[in-house]
Amino acid sequence: MNIIILGCGRMGSTMAIRLAREGHEVYVIDQEPDAFRRLRDFTGTTVLGNGLDPDVLKRAGIKRADAFVAVTNGDNRNITSVQIAKEIFNVPKVLARIYDPMRASAYETLGIPTICTTMIGAGLMTDFILGRAWGDVSSYCEILPD
Amino acid sequence: MNIIILGCGRMGSTMAIRLAREGHEVYVIDQEPDAFRRLRDFTGTTVLGNGLDPDVLKRAGIKRADAFVAVTNGDNRNITSVQIAKEIFNVPKVLARIYDPMRASAYETLGIPTICTTMIGAGLMTDFILGRAWGDVSSYCEILPD
Repeated sequence: MNIIILGCGRMGSTMAIRLAREGHEVYVIDQEPDAFRRLRDFTGTTVLGNGLDPDVLKRAGIKRADAFVAVTNGDNRNITSVQIAKEIFNVPKVLARIYDPMRASAYETLGIPTICTTMIGAGLMTDFILGRAWGDVSSYCEILPD
Repeated sequence: MNIIILGCGRMGSTMAIRLAREGHEVYVIDQEPDAFRRLRDFTGTTVLGNGLDPDVLKRAGIKRADAFVAVTNGDNRNITSVQIAKEIFNVPKVLARIYDPMRASAYETLGIPTICTTMIGAGLMTDFILGRAWGDVSSYCEILPD
């Protein structure tokens, strides 16, 4: 698959390395050149630029992308870029990481696939502290991606 | 249970509200007064101060705490505070949230219970993008808490 990852922080770089290792064609976009230092042993392509800029997205091959994942530190940026990928470039599979549980429920109503890592992490840690067995992931995630 | 949460960011406040709602006695520590604004409808106690300071921990009732969770934005701070809670105050159940997957594996060898939300999130998002069903949480978490 051709996969674009927007945001080369810890989450983005971890996904990029893993997906490239599995044989996928991976493009990682970030506006900070220093962010790419995290990509140790990465066999994909890095694209320097603003992920909301259609020209930058085109350089990352968005016209032939099968999937687009936004994992920058900004919820709004993630949501907006995913909407651009979906609505303008018709990328079949999109996903935005969201920190803010309050926003996540709003985006659900807009039909934008999001995953709220805060809700999942809080659920897992709560169960651990209370000595409860970990359940299925979907039990922690109020907003499930499509 | 008496539960102390260090760090009142999105993760900490989400856990605090949830645990208090379930009837637990919850103390939340943060050094930024503004952080407590996130605690809407919270019935527990807030403690302003540095979570590495034993006096602050005592104000949060650490001597009778059943559990201590560290979810500040600093991996080192989380690990250090959890070690203080465990080794100095003998808190039976401790857990540190870790962002950096590289550090997580080091802490595993030290026997410190950590949960690396980056690894879990990256695993879930990767599976979603590739169209694979979500597995058990432990399949995403290289470092499992004790």
